Amino acid sequence: MDRKEFRDLASPDDARAAIRSLALEGGIDRVPLADAHGRVLVARIDAELDVPGFDRASMDGYALRARETFGADESDPARLRVVGEVHAGDAPRRALEAGEALEISTGAVMPPGADAMVPVERTDRDGEDVLVRTGLAPGDNVMFAGADVAAGERALGPGTRLTPREIGLLSALGVEEVAVRSRPRVGIVSTGDELVRPGEQIDSTRGEIYDVNSYTVAAGVEEAGGKAVVYPHAGDEQAEMERVLREAADECDLVLSSGSTSASAVDVVYRVIEERGELLLHGVSVKPGKPMLVGELDGSAYVGLPGYPVSAMMVFRTFVAPAIREAAGLPEPETATVTGRMAIEERSEEGRLRLAPVGILEPGPDETSADGEFLVYPVDKGSGATTSLAHADGFVEVHPDTAYLAADERVTVRLFSPAVRPPALLGVGDADPTLSRALDGVEGARYLPIGARPALRRLREGIPDVAVVAGPAEGRTPADATTLASWEREWGLLVPAGNPDEVDGLASLLEGDTRFVNVHADSSLARGLETRVRALADDRGERPRALERAIEGYDLRLRGIESPARRVAAGEADAGVGLRETASHLGLGFVPLGEQPVRVLVNPPRREKPGVGTLEEALERELASR
Amino acid sequence: MDRKEFRDLASPDDARAAIRSLALEGGIDRVPLADAHGRVLVARIDAELDVPGFDRASMDGYALRARETFGADESDPARLRVVGEVHAGDAPRRALEAGEALEISTGAVMPPGADAMVPVERTDRDGEDVLVRTGLAPGDNVMFAGADVAAGERALGPGTRLTPREIGLLSALGVEEVAVRSRPRVGIVSTGDELVRPGEQIDSTRGEIYDVNSYTVAAGVEEAGGKAVVYPHAGDEQAEMERVLREAADECDLVLSSGSTSASAVDVVYRVIEERGELLLHGVSVKPGKPMLVGELDGSAYVGLPGYPVSAMMVFRTFVAPAIREAAGLPEPETATVTGRMAIEERSEEGRLRLAPVGILEPGPDETSADGEFLVYPVDKGSGATTSLAHADGFVEVHPDTAYLAADERVTVRLFSPAVRPPALLGVGDADPTLSRALDGVEGARYLPIGARPALRRLREGIPDVAVVAGPAEGRTPADATTLASWEREWGLLVPAGNPDEVDGLASLLEGDTRFVNVHADSSLARGLETRVRALADDRGERPRALERAIEGYDLRLRGIESPARRVAAGEADAGVGLRETASHLGLGFVPLGEQPVRVLVNPPRREKPGVGTLEEALERELASR
Repeated sequence: MDRKEFRDLASPDDARAAIRSLALEGGIDRVPLADAHGRVLVARIDAELDVPGFDRASMDGYALRARETFGADESDPARLRVVGEVHAGDAPRRALEAGEALEISTGAVMPPGADAMVPVERTDRDGEDVLVRTGLAPGDNVMFAGADVAAGERALGPGTRLTPREIGLLSALGVEEVAVRSRPRVGIVSTGDELVRPGEQIDSTRGEIYDVNSYTVAAGVEEAGGKAVVYPHAGDEQAEMERVLREAADECDLVLSSGSTSASAVDVVYRVIEERGELLLHGVSVKPGKPMLVGELDGSAYVGLPGYPVSAMMVFRTFVAPAIREAAGLPEPETATVTGRMAIEERSEEGRLRLAPVGILEPGPDETSADGEFLVYPVDKGSGATTSLAHADGFVEVHPDTAYLAADERVTVRLFSPAVRPPALLGVGDADPTLSRALDGVEGARYLPIGARPALRRLREGIPDVAVVAGPAEGRTPADATTLASWEREWGLLVPAGNPDEVDGLASLLEGDTRFVNVHADSSLARGLETRVRALADDRGERPRALERAIEGYDLRLRGIESPARRVAAGEADAGVGLRETASHLGLGFVPLGEQPVRVLVNPPRREKPGVGTLEEALERELASR
Repeated sequence: MDRKEFRDLASPDDARAAIRSLALEGGIDRVPLADAHGRVLVARIDAELDVPGFDRASMDGYALRARETFGADESDPARLRVVGEVHAGDAPRRALEAGEALEISTGAVMPPGADAMVPVERTDRDGEDVLVRTGLAPGDNVMFAGADVAAGERALGPGTRLTPREIGLLSALGVEEVAVRSRPRVGIVSTGDELVRPGEQIDSTRGEIYDVNSYTVAAGVEEAGGKAVVYPHAGDEQAEMERVLREAADECDLVLSSGSTSASAVDVVYRVIEERGELLLHGVSVKPGKPMLVGELDGSAYVGLPGYPVSAMMVFRTFVAPAIREAAGLPEPETATVTGRMAIEERSEEGRLRLAPVGILEPGPDETSADGEFLVYPVDKGSGATTSLAHADGFVEVHPDTAYLAADERVTVRLFSPAVRPPALLGVGDADPTLSRALDGVEGARYLPIGARPALRRLREGIPDVAVVAGPAEGRTPADATTLASWEREWGLLVPAGNPDEVDGLASLLEGDTRFVNVHADSSLARGLETRVRALADDRGERPRALERAIEGYDLRLRGIESPARRVAAGEADAGVGLRETASHLGLGFVPLGEQPVRVLVNPPRREKPGVGTLEEALERELASR
């Protein structure tokens, strides 16, 4: 197939312009007022009637002729004959004659002949008469017809976003239905034979994974004011992909595909777009997002997003969401962007605009270096990781000529969503069940189980609020870090219930064909195990590495603290390192190897941060109930 | 009836505490992931599976054994036999043996026996062999099972608000349904015999008006994270009001009534609550909002709001919305509050907390007095006016001990909605059809048709961006105000089509029984008319006031520039003052009396404000097309 040549990568600005050149606007919806909240008016609305539609009493009291109260005061009231009453929702039964007053309720129609009213507090009743203890001027306490809104008056302009107050004005004008901009329909097509919808079973042996992009992009589309339409996954088969793309183009104003940047998918997209539309752009000088496609298909706009979730989200947010907002007539929310300072230096490759995922953090109340601004720290588990989507709050655009962001440099962070807030608490370190339960008591806490050693490094860099370290104290704990709480946990070998292989310690792993599973080297459990292996090697006069090699699976290091236990529970291993608590939780046998302290260390300038105090209380409660 | 005695007004804090003491929480909803966006998690979610669930190739290339590439480089590549290929979504057909490589796609399962992969860019194909031009370490370009999220790991804590990124994490974990907090159901009951729903006809002779509060409060409830249920209006009839209140209490977590603070309505509410619940509070030291009621009814919370729309909205926003947010688990949006400086002094009565409606405005780029903060100006057409709801952006809480807010004083403005933005342009002055069309080209413009004289006063105070003045120049135009645009408009008498009374000028109004209608004295049309009356009086040697009295309806002053014309069109008057353009628009006859210039004057420090520039362009376009 002949591909159009796009020898040079387009600039990010050209990519934005290309997307903007495509018409994403939907049409016009006519919606009932009760559903119009948040929508955007198509045309000006002028008042079709006077509000109020009649001269209206502003208070409870008496309608009267102002000139008949001239000179009245507390000591010398005017006396008027009360000839009836009128309530809100009633028509006055007759006009007022000289010397008369009419009892009137707030909101009721002023009777003909009356030109003012006196509030009941300034009167006394005397049989059929009322004594008016104040002088009144014509118009006093009366709202004249049209005084609020006059018929013919401009009420709301085109492009007005309808918030509760505009809804109120429209209801006052009796408007029951309004013409609002249609929300642009955005079709979402995730491509890839490996994708499975949540709720269905995945087959990991075939490399199946759950689809992420359909859900994140759909939620992003809705946030930007669009209407998301999620299409069934298109596999890598060409005819199927073409069918789904064309169906989406037929039904939507914009089609977004993700994962469509692989070579085979690109071929299909190229062919379909060449036949049925126009390709405007392939390849943008941005990382990630380089293979982005922009075109027009059967009269609809088309943008091809990267397949990796974080990349797809950043490219969507940078290039596509602004165009959807514009078509919907909605401004970018102010809270979608925050400024802050880099907590540490972040190096960057030059040459392309880089979208660098970051987390944001509230500094401590007296943290001088932070100057009241957010702290911004890089988050990167690799672009394929969904957790970097969950652990990052947004991203920084790093200019192609920028080699690095310096520590303390001020940066603008584009949040993944205007609803994103900095975590109440950022903790890093070892995973632990007691800690995890305590964290449930800290709303908005974020905890990254990166292991003890990386956690201490991050703590020395001054990033997290707390670092959680299990096992014996390490040399490089920051000297001024204080301990918020500590407790002991029991660890050992987790085996199938009933311990069928009769494992009774490390030595058992050296015998027979016990399949063992270890945890990641950064976990304090792994270090605990190393110490035991070393002790056993000493006893036996062997080299520790020799023992390690003799344990089948010692180098099979899984990331999660429960991961080895889960392999054992699944029958895929005969023993794994883990906690007693995990063993009881999963119904496994437990062979104790030792206890280790767990310490929660506080980054000193964060000691007074509210989230730290909340964690302290939650830990106290949790430890008291053990 | 015995009413509980609440001799002292409760403090605002006590009112907040009373509302908070009522349980507004709904239960738990189980919603599909696709509908979970914006909702709040009830409980922690731990990962139930490893992500990825298999060792996964991070790029397109070849799976291999790292040790077989040891020392390879550009000039001395490692040669491996390619024994097959594996795509994303396929299972590898066999394990890799020594000397072998497998072509592998991004996202595909690494075959057993392979421990690394090389990206295709670092290789060359040579028949059935691949030349690997780089050395690799075990794990290179592979994401191991569970490396992203490990089974058993804490994924999201209770209370987490689900934004697109959390939705992405949950979909990666295969979660198809989540337990989220129910949105509190809030029943809205507007009371009053005079209320009519938009879309129905109102009878102004009976004082009927369209219901506003049901719509504003419902929209406010939805914004705060609640589910609004609008009940039919309860009239002032006691049995009906009791029935509606109890139905709402039965179906909702919170019942809000508005207009229920009138004496008769209060009696019903008292009785129903005394019989079926508990009254916690009646009367709060806040203005407006003093007659607020708080109680408990059939196990549901109850709050009685004032009937006037602005008051209802402010009391809702101050006391009720925070409680709904809390029950929904949502934080107060940051954009719901802004700070600014008072543009002018605002006096206040002492003794009660006052909620003072205000508008906010962006200052000009070089406006030194503003210091980059919003300008805040008082808006008050009287609490019964719905336009003060539309013209105000929010309100300032003025402490009971504060006698006035000084000009330049820093204040906190609670916006009516987090979606409220300052207008792109604030204009005040005469109404004019040419102006109104030009304003349609300025998205987010706000124009208050307050008439020329008040507009010039506001301009001297430095509040609006532009003031629009029709008629001859007045003495008190600020000296440094520049004219953005000006044009002429023709005005005169508007009469029924065909001019049945053969009106041919002012003199005709003095003859026969022609019913005339005038406009508000602040309008420049009224001043134009005065001038003509004076000239005619001079001609005739009479006093102008005598002529004015001789014109039937001269003192009947309507607010809108089209209001007299509409009376004529409705057959309720025989002639009215107005514009030629209004006559053609409404199909009326026109008797010219003169031309007057319309000038758009700019507040000097706002000359460079973008909205002013947009208006200038829109006026140029509009005037060019005349």
